Amino acid sequence: MTARMRVNGVATAQVSALDRGLAYGDGLFESIRFVGAIAPLWPRHMQRLAEGCARLRIPAPNPAQLWREALEVSRDMPAAVLRITVTRGPGERGYALPAAPQPTRVVAAFAPPPVAAGIYAQGVRLRVCDLRLAEQPLLAGLKHLNRLEQVLARAEWNDPAIADGVLLDSHGRVISATMANLFALVDGQWLTPALDRCGVAGVARAEVLAACPQVRVGELALDTLLGAGEVFLSSSVRGIVPVRSLDGRSYAPGTTTRRLQQHWRDLGFSMEQGG
Amino acid sequence: MTARMRVNGVATAQVSALDRGLAYGDGLFESIRFVGAIAPLWPRHMQRLAEGCARLRIPAPNPAQLWREALEVSRDMPAAVLRITVTRGPGERGYALPAAPQPTRVVAAFAPPPVAAGIYAQGVRLRVCDLRLAEQPLLAGLKHLNRLEQVLARAEWNDPAIADGVLLDSHGRVISATMANLFALVDGQWLTPALDRCGVAGVARAEVLAACPQVRVGELALDTLLGAGEVFLSSSVRGIVPVRSLDGRSYAPGTTTRRLQQHWRDLGFSMEQGG
Repeated sequence: MTARMRVNGVATAQVSALDRGLAYGDGLFESIRFVGAIAPLWPRHMQRLAEGCARLRIPAPNPAQLWREALEVSRDMPAAVLRITVTRGPGERGYALPAAPQPTRVVAAFAPPPVAAGIYAQGVRLRVCDLRLAEQPLLAGLKHLNRLEQVLARAEWNDPAIADGVLLDSHGRVISATMANLFALVDGQWLTPALDRCGVAGVARAEVLAACPQVRVGELALDTLLGAGEVFLSSSVRGIVPVRSLDGRSYAPGTTTRRLQQHWRDLGFSMEQGG
Repeated sequence: MTARMRVNGVATAQVSALDRGLAYGDGLFESIRFVGAIAPLWPRHMQRLAEGCARLRIPAPNPAQLWREALEVSRDMPAAVLRITVTRGPGERGYALPAAPQPTRVVAAFAPPPVAAGIYAQGVRLRVCDLRLAEQPLLAGLKHLNRLEQVLARAEWNDPAIADGVLLDSHGRVISATMANLFALVDGQWLTPALDRCGVAGVARAEVLAACPQVRVGELALDTLLGAGEVFLSSSVRGIVPVRSLDGRSYAPGTTTRRLQQHWRDLGFSMEQGG
């Protein structure tokens, strides 16, 4: 384990074994790309975390405190991915909310994931996952700690040439990749799936939607995706990544993908291609 | 916190903050009622845990080792509820399965929950939850650590006179209570919901099904439940608990409920009424 971390501000690598984050996945997380001491999407991460805490009725952490701890754990790292985990804290047995919750916050810095050569220029290969996401509107959009579906979906393939898998819901609608949101150009119109029944509303997705107001949020059928002219993924860790193939179908990155990659560079990201 | 515990055999109350159980809810648990050094349903708990580990591809713990640790942490407790948690262990960032997982096992002993007077004789009051369970066949039946739905459902009410809530799936089918399985007598036929799309296949439910082969496993509509002649809950922690009311409808415990309560006493449970 190479992470450096703080748990409730203390330099330790341990949490209570009675934490409800472990017992029930009762919490949320954020994965935040840092370039030195810069995290261009930090305000969006803090906004999503606050909204998630409100929806789960977890007292929200103080963003200024999180910022200080994030800088502490990533100090001297030229680039890092910070994982901030917020749980409802320790609890006795039972699902009922504690009367006076003492939330746990974990701030951990990791080295960025390795970037395969050419993924920003040429794009990545995807497959369609067999697992169908269950639909739970009360949890949809949240980056909560109940992620067994993503674990099982990611376990469907081992081929390192496949970068990610496309997830459909139980009605066959395209929702996202396992660790990124997805955008497709369909008949001249950019489209990204609605996430009101399942899926995670990514911070990078929100940045794309703000930068490209012409993108429509709606339903996306698999056949429509397979027939799209252009597809890219958005991720707070990897940025804007073109998709070059999905099962048998091929795509080529176009002007919107390139413009968004430039937008990422303009924000201050300095990875291979602005991711 | 009053629990006594072992983490991977060590007397500590902490786990790694990088454990995938915390990061993703990537694991399983069992809540096991002990009466002194007796745990009548232990073999069923071990069987369910092994099956869950197989389905999630987590290396299963050694039951003999768990048994020793369970006796250690519950020693000198006249009665206890043991929580055994098994996770895929520590991991770096990312959903992909570790190549060489080092599962984490937490064995913790808690005092049994307080029993309200008369619940075994007269029964408990239930309500119908607003939350609808999402349907994920790949996780259905498992007692996994992704329990945010149960946390949110349990947060729907504060009235201490309501013991539990009935959960329906997104199609309106009755599945269970938030912390127990449910049985209903409908037109002379005992029925318990099928759990192949969502819900937890309880160890006490398995014991009831083994003791009462005439119980049918199938679909149960809410209207059917409201019109049932008799309803009870099964729980590894609380045993067989009659339901006296559900929203406006009242029920009275009959011979099957009483016979199963006696069965629980015969197994060695010694709570107020064989729970």
